[in-house]
Amino acid sequence: MKVTLRTDVLTNNNIAADFNRKLFESTKTLVINLMSSPGAGKTTLLEETVKELSGKYRIAVIEGDLATERDADRIRAMGAKAVQINTHGGCHLDARMIAACLGEFDLDEVDLLFIENVGNLVCPSGYDLGQHHKVAVLSVPEGNDKIPKYPQMFMRTELVLLNKIDLLPYLDFSVEEAQKDLSEINPQSKVIPLSARTYEGLTEWFSWIEGAYQQCVQQ
Amino acid sequence: MKVTLRTDVLTNNNIAADFNRKLFESTKTLVINLMSSPGAGKTTLLEETVKELSGKYRIAVIEGDLATERDADRIRAMGAKAVQINTHGGCHLDARMIAACLGEFDLDEVDLLFIENVGNLVCPSGYDLGQHHKVAVLSVPEGNDKIPKYPQMFMRTELVLLNKIDLLPYLDFSVEEAQKDLSEINPQSKVIPLSARTYEGLTEWFSWIEGAYQQCVQQ
Repeated sequence: MKVTLRTDVLTNNNIAADFNRKLFESTKTLVINLMSSPGAGKTTLLEETVKELSGKYRIAVIEGDLATERDADRIRAMGAKAVQINTHGGCHLDARMIAACLGEFDLDEVDLLFIENVGNLVCPSGYDLGQHHKVAVLSVPEGNDKIPKYPQMFMRTELVLLNKIDLLPYLDFSVEEAQKDLSEINPQSKVIPLSARTYEGLTEWFSWIEGAYQQCVQQ
Repeated sequence: MKVTLRTDVLTNNNIAADFNRKLFESTKTLVINLMSSPGAGKTTLLEETVKELSGKYRIAVIEGDLATERDADRIRAMGAKAVQINTHGGCHLDARMIAACLGEFDLDEVDLLFIENVGNLVCPSGYDLGQHHKVAVLSVPEGNDKIPKYPQMFMRTELVLLNKIDLLPYLDFSVEEAQKDLSEINPQSKVIPLSARTYEGLTEWFSWIEGAYQQCVQQ
């Protein structure tokens, strides 16, 4: 009974995810699903990303939160179109929530669509939203044990942004250990250490996005 | 259909929570359910708490994680009995998981039982485990917007431990703002700023536990 139900929920989600995926392919919109713990710095990273890339690409953002419009307001202040989804207690975004808000955008006029998922290192990883890429943000104050302790998230993402490295001098975090733990769980996954605050490492993240966009439009 | 199912899940949970609660009352065991985002510092705080209070109280810990035995090992190294629950992808502990592992302890010989929930600021808050007190840990690197953005957690907890205050000089976090946000959502809730690393504020947390224990045994 429990298994059947879970299958149904995920089957419904996957139908909506396939719908989203076909739409994104037809409009040549690169879609990145950004996931992390609460407070890992996703919104600050998106603010800097919009600031840097909006001269070159047309950018839109979907913000997922339990409550408030705060994150969408922050992105709008950077000049990008942003839609806020409030889950009212829900712990993740699903593909139907994304499908339901796509009418707010003219996707033919959007090159990059970032989806900032609900801050939660567990539930969001299980839901395909139809995105091209799943990216995890892990902030160094969270500690070195997060990759082995939350394997589902890090097995399902192809890039880990190791954020807040400006705090490394005050913490016991080892970047090498994180890279080693990740390579054991998910050898294909890449790590970019960065700080959205000091700008260190951000150019590597921007280059990664540009490469992914080229790949998206060439398909 | 969806509503019925959710009611059933929570009804089943509440039956097990009541069972746990009666057991804890009969053995005069104070039970604290500790919840937070991943990496807010729950385990380090418990290590220090066990170190400080184990001369005076008989302490046991239930550790909830998706994977690994790491946290239980850390607590055992401090000399307390610890049982690890691995949820294998599950995003929270429920009352039946707690009931199922209580046979590992002789509760008549336990004064304080700490339950370290799965690192997740969303799902654990909805599940009564039969505990006396729900306590949230919020670490200052997570940022000032977490209380309004995750209201369900902070409405349901009666104490917020504001951890990692040794990092305040390197962050834009305001303790006053956090206290103000909390008083709007949950005026009864108390805040203790502390650092499990530098020991600042820990005596207030230990006193809070001692007061709660006195109340528990007098009932």
